[in-house]
Amino acid sequence: MSDEKKVGFVGMGEVESHKEIREIGVGMLGYAFMGKAHSNGYLKMPYFFYPPPAKPKLVAIAGRKSAAVAEAARRYGYQTHYTDWRDVVKDDRIQLVDNGLPNDLHREPSIAAAEAGKDIFCEKPMAMSSREAKEMYDAVTKARVKNMVAYNYRFIPAIMLARQLISEGYLGRILQYRAAYLQEWIMDPNFPLVWRLSKKIAGSGALGDLGSHSIDLGRYLVGDVAAVSAMKKTFIDERPLLGEPSKKGKVDVDDAFIALLKFKNGAIGSVEASRFCAGRKNFQRIEVHGTEGSMYFNLERLNELQVYSRRDKEDRMGFKDIMATEVVHPLMKFWWPHGHMIGWEDTHVNQIYHLVDCIANDKKVDPLGATFYDGWKCDEICEAISLSSETEKWVSLPL
Amino acid sequence: MSDEKKVGFVGMGEVESHKEIREIGVGMLGYAFMGKAHSNGYLKMPYFFYPPPAKPKLVAIAGRKSAAVAEAARRYGYQTHYTDWRDVVKDDRIQLVDNGLPNDLHREPSIAAAEAGKDIFCEKPMAMSSREAKEMYDAVTKARVKNMVAYNYRFIPAIMLARQLISEGYLGRILQYRAAYLQEWIMDPNFPLVWRLSKKIAGSGALGDLGSHSIDLGRYLVGDVAAVSAMKKTFIDERPLLGEPSKKGKVDVDDAFIALLKFKNGAIGSVEASRFCAGRKNFQRIEVHGTEGSMYFNLERLNELQVYSRRDKEDRMGFKDIMATEVVHPLMKFWWPHGHMIGWEDTHVNQIYHLVDCIANDKKVDPLGATFYDGWKCDEICEAISLSSETEKWVSLPL
Amino acid sequence: MSDEKKVGFVGMGEVESHKEIREIGVGMLGYAFMGKAHSNGYLKMPYFFYPPPAKPKLVAIAGRKSAAVAEAARRYGYQTHYTDWRDVVKDDRIQLVDNGLPNDLHREPSIAAAEAGKDIFCEKPMAMSSREAKEMYDAVTKARVKNMVAYNYRFIPAIMLARQLISEGYLGRILQYRAAYLQEWIMDPNFPLVWRLSKKIAGSGALGDLGSHSIDLGRYLVGDVAAVSAMKKTFIDERPLLGEPSKKGKVDVDDAFIALLKFKNGAIGSVEASRFCAGRKNFQRIEVHGTEGSMYFNLERLNELQVYSRRDKEDRMGFKDIMATEVVHPLMKFWWPHGHMIGWEDTHVNQIYHLVDCIANDKKVDPLGATFYDGWKCDEICEAISLSSETEKWVSLPL
Amino acid sequence: MSDEKKVGFVGMGEVESHKEIREIGVGMLGYAFMGKAHSNGYLKMPYFFYPPPAKPKLVAIAGRKSAAVAEAARRYGYQTHYTDWRDVVKDDRIQLVDNGLPNDLHREPSIAAAEAGKDIFCEKPMAMSSREAKEMYDAVTKARVKNMVAYNYRFIPAIMLARQLISEGYLGRILQYRAAYLQEWIMDPNFPLVWRLSKKIAGSGALGDLGSHSIDLGRYLVGDVAAVSAMKKTFIDERPLLGEPSKKGKVDVDDAFIALLKFKNGAIGSVEASRFCAGRKNFQRIEVHGTEGSMYFNLERLNELQVYSRRDKEDRMGFKDIMATEVVHPLMKFWWPHGHMIGWEDTHVNQIYHLVDCIANDKKVDPLGATFYDGWKCDEICEAISLSSETEKWVSLPL
Repeated sequence: MSDEKKVGFVGMGEVESHKEIREIGVGMLGYAFMGKAHSNGYLKMPYFFYPPPAKPKLVAIAGRKSAAVAEAARRYGYQTHYTDWRDVVKDDRIQLVDNGLPNDLHREPSIAAAEAGKDIFCEKPMAMSSREAKEMYDAVTKARVKNMVAYNYRFIPAIMLARQLISEGYLGRILQYRAAYLQEWIMDPNFPLVWRLSKKIAGSGALGDLGSHSIDLGRYLVGDVAAVSAMKKTFIDERPLLGEPSKKGKVDVDDAFIALLKFKNGAIGSVEASRFCAGRKNFQRIEVHGTEGSMYFNLERLNELQVYSRRDKEDRMGFKDIMATEVVHPLMKFWWPHGHMIGWEDTHVNQIYHLVDCIANDKKVDPLGATFYDGWKCDEICEAISLSSETEKWVSLPL
Repeated sequence: MSDEKKVGFVGMGEVESHKEIREIGVGMLGYAFMGKAHSNGYLKMPYFFYPPPAKPKLVAIAGRKSAAVAEAARRYGYQTHYTDWRDVVKDDRIQLVDNGLPNDLHREPSIAAAEAGKDIFCEKPMAMSSREAKEMYDAVTKARVKNMVAYNYRFIPAIMLARQLISEGYLGRILQYRAAYLQEWIMDPNFPLVWRLSKKIAGSGALGDLGSHSIDLGRYLVGDVAAVSAMKKTFIDERPLLGEPSKKGKVDVDDAFIALLKFKNGAIGSVEASRFCAGRKNFQRIEVHGTEGSMYFNLERLNELQVYSRRDKEDRMGFKDIMATEVVHPLMKFWWPHGHMIGWEDTHVNQIYHLVDCIANDKKVDPLGATFYDGWKCDEICEAISLSSETEKWVSLPL
Repeated sequence: MSDEKKVGFVGMGEVESHKEIREIGVGMLGYAFMGKAHSNGYLKMPYFFYPPPAKPKLVAIAGRKSAAVAEAARRYGYQTHYTDWRDVVKDDRIQLVDNGLPNDLHREPSIAAAEAGKDIFCEKPMAMSSREAKEMYDAVTKARVKNMVAYNYRFIPAIMLARQLISEGYLGRILQYRAAYLQEWIMDPNFPLVWRLSKKIAGSGALGDLGSHSIDLGRYLVGDVAAVSAMKKTFIDERPLLGEPSKKGKVDVDDAFIALLKFKNGAIGSVEASRFCAGRKNFQRIEVHGTEGSMYFNLERLNELQVYSRRDKEDRMGFKDIMATEVVHPLMKFWWPHGHMIGWEDTHVNQIYHLVDCIANDKKVDPLGATFYDGWKCDEICEAISLSSETEKWVSLPL
Repeated sequence: MSDEKKVGFVGMGEVESHKEIREIGVGMLGYAFMGKAHSNGYLKMPYFFYPPPAKPKLVAIAGRKSAAVAEAARRYGYQTHYTDWRDVVKDDRIQLVDNGLPNDLHREPSIAAAEAGKDIFCEKPMAMSSREAKEMYDAVTKARVKNMVAYNYRFIPAIMLARQLISEGYLGRILQYRAAYLQEWIMDPNFPLVWRLSKKIAGSGALGDLGSHSIDLGRYLVGDVAAVSAMKKTFIDERPLLGEPSKKGKVDVDDAFIALLKFKNGAIGSVEASRFCAGRKNFQRIEVHGTEGSMYFNLERLNELQVYSRRDKEDRMGFKDIMATEVVHPLMKFWWPHGHMIGWEDTHVNQIYHLVDCIANDKKVDPLGATFYDGWKCDEICEAISLSSETEKWVSLPL
């Protein structure tokens, strides 16, 4: 790699002979937050990861509200829109089904897609229960389709670097893991009862929505969990109905939870999430301590990883703030010159690159990406946390 | 705006009746770093700023190397590619010419485009000299075409917020401005003699490339400059030729400069840039002090603005780290929920939105964007800095 | 207060008529880490808190090793030294007994001192068990002597400010508390089996040594604890004997612990401590979240308090870094001008000022300082944490 | 050094045979801010640096206001007080004269003390002009007395570490130096005309008071200055008289200055100071860039030094935040365990230790401490900055 390329000032220096790039038909379920984030990922990926392993073709998008999904199709660039997800599963042009529907609609479409031989990319948390998750895992295993769960924070270059360094032994043996995912968006008592606050649709609250990310990163960076002791809390248990603010409905999910963790490898730790931490917008703090060093990461400054090594010379040890934007950092050679930071959405672009690469070149999704196996194991831990909170007892895994 | 929209969890809640969206033909000159950043901006803008004021249509891209520009057209999605920029100017499908060529090729194509009645968006620094800049300014004024210079950091929401707060009097009367734009990419003596290190092509070194950004922000946040005293330094004056590393050529631009500033409104300050500051990747620190408060910004954490107000209660004053990602922050309603940070490339997306909005709805480019007038004034200051360095005297403005 | 005094540039501007300053005889038990820190506090206090409420007179110091305690007396400035703490209790010149002995020697001397009618200042954790602590509390209550436990972090001006702001309602109703006290000093497996690693002398490990501070701050800032679920861990369970490194002895205290907390007022939280967090030297992070705002404190930057208020204007909310060094901040008028930071040792000076003021002017030690009641309640929580770890069950308080 | 001592948990482990410690009689001129800071230094030093090279004996303090100086003597512990500094010079018990008087009273007492054969420790800036400074330097040279100027920031362990690392070549060849010393204490227009705002007494404003520190650190870390170009600014030129607020007097010193620097070794840089930077209490930022790395220091977090090395492995470079509180760090073995931060006042304690050690053991004050030679050279640079501001020309050194 030339020096110029290294610093990123030339993007087109070496012309490669143009080979035909294969297309992969994508069917998107859901058009809201994650629909928008994923669709953006499909569109952006081939621009940056060029030439791409395959080019996502936006075939169809599905959603229940006809006018809205039509608008979404127009906006995001899908050829077709459906109001029934089954139409996506049936559509022969589609090879990859991306399930961005609310949590109660992860199981059925994912299984149907697998049975139709389609590769499947599912939002997290994967299922409403570990039992459901197991069914989904069994379905994709049986169908031998590519499968990935959208734990996009695995694809933050700084986190990928963390994993690399841990693999190399930078931290020695891991002793402690500490994660807190903190937000504030529902602190206002007048904030309405959206689906994420309903157990029937979301399964859980902060636990599945935020905590699952931190739990997945714990499995990714440290390993499997053996047992948990946990507590949940709902700070506001009634809220105005969405679109009918004069009436109130019950909030039956957790606003916050905290869990003690025992890992199988002997490490200990804690994980928590809350939607009631004023000032924390999308703050996910990850700390890992080992016999030889420590690491610190904060999602609100996602281009940075702080590392500490006990192997440094004694008078010059300190937490080092690595800006993980060098060409030598994971996936960063596809992006901008160092110091030209990437944004939150780019974690999705990176993730979709990996998935498309796995599909196009028949590579394994894990351990880099989270498979349905990982989704299941993460759901087990969430369920154990929930169970522990309710029984006020330690709960061992697997359930 | 509904609460849900406020926190960004619904992107498609309200369907607007679909009106036809006008297209604007874009011709891009240059395909390297800025060609890539701008093309990405044209592609991304309508996705986020939806419905967009108009939709950029990527008509043609021009560059000298035939194979490379063909590849760029394929990659970025341009319909046509040319090896002569004059073909872009002649192309009737093109309404907006985007000049991302090296600095010595800003003047002629921009003037030609203006004379052809095309709107023109030019990379910074605008020209090789203030005289050239004046010619360009005269040309677009005469032709009455929209014109903008790519001082994209004006479109960082945190910087836009800074400007808003200053306008509201948050800082009181401005007393001091301090800017340092620091990089490290040419510290290796074996780094080759790229065009940015050649006076004939680049005009200057760190001064025009980096310093011009900080000078433009100084004009944007504080006002016009009255006089400068400056010094320049070239730390490594010979480098290997690009593609012929056994031979060396002369570096005839500045590796670093520092300038004292007197503003017309009485404020004082300094601005500097360097490509030899180890560890600073794309670090641009902006500090503004006024009679009532202070501000601090760092480009490597571009979602944040720190502000200090003397009007706070005495026991609770402090620098406040605003994460400028709320829906109420400039342009942020078009992006992700708060705390889901945007990246460096999005400053270009925001800038292109503004330009397209100005073109489509015949709005004024300034004071939000930098016009060719601003480009000229900024070039004057750069030239004064250069002159001051060479004469070792204070230089007053205008030249 | 004159402006000049306000900025601290005059310390001697107003001469007060010199009244005779009373002396208080101090007897110090122990001469090591805390002996040094407290003795320094007695010496420094009258210099800064001038005129002091009373002047501590260093009468006697006691320790088991004769030569060492003689040297300590010489160094710290005590008139007399003893090798038996009982001699301190008997010494009529002594009004205040300061117990800086290892934890197993807190109970007996403190009770004896109280019975001798002496005021008593005891290092933390106060006792080896909640039962012992209750005895000590009963003794001082019966004897009606002034009593304080050395939870010196209550006297950090930034923490005192935190408490003030919370009292004023700055955070609204408290929802969450999160504390982590992290050190690294015993990570080396060859680090010897010092008394702090022996249950017989120390009672517990990180829990009583570090965790007790964070638990006390939790009580100070949030309120009483209702129940805990906890885990402890000893990472290295054998270490070289001190002074006999070829032999090994058993480490029977915790190297780390983590506890979930339910507060009586409904808030939830966690507290943990570890001596195995590489890179964390004396890192104690305290986070408090309420319905109206949040706070953040880090002991390694003890002059600073970060606060976030939801009552700020929507476009300018952010964590504000208050440097708690203004004359209006608690106790800071006695120190240096703002920005001239105080050090760790000064938390002891502040604490001793408070104690001496309470003794000299017969004021109440609490709620600002921790009394033996607070020491007892804190020990109860520590014991509950220990019990919960061993039984793997939630434990309710009081025991 | 035993492990226990290493982590600082035992201060008295090894008893040294008690040798008689010599005393050095100190005479203090001035009792305000610096009088307080230095006297504290003399008192504290032997406690921490034990056994001390010699023990300062506080013999006499002098000041013009009789009642105030009497009170100061009582408070600080001086045996005698005088209202005429000449009495200090005459006092045979005094070996070391510490001149903390306003700047216009540095020359005469220092020269008189030198002529009386007394060692002399003088506050900064050393003199009212470079000519005066030269006279002072000549006097101490002729008298062969120990001499030091109170550039106490040289004795911050983090700064001492910076110097060590630079000496070892950590930064390679120094290319750039950037210093800004920012305060805010006179922003209020009603703040009175104190002596520090009067040219006749102070000589200059922010330049001599704050800038001289940053200039001295520049000489300490980088080397001699060859030429300067500078500007000064007075933002408020009339203020209420002290003690007579209805009348106003002229401010004839600089509120702020900024200077470009050319160092003799080819490095370039800038130094500035201001008393009008809202939110900056005692903020002194020092940045040094070399061919192999960079350093960053901020006085408001004085226990920390940030360093960046280009020699790190490419994927793990970053600014490392060294908490300079380890026993291996300069002078830190005399203080608390690591992470137990020292305060601003301790820079004076460290400095006094060095001076007393030089006196007691006849060591050289420089290069660690600033001698009258350094004081003179620093004053020359200040004068050159002043001259450059007035003439608007570059000024070369030596004058």
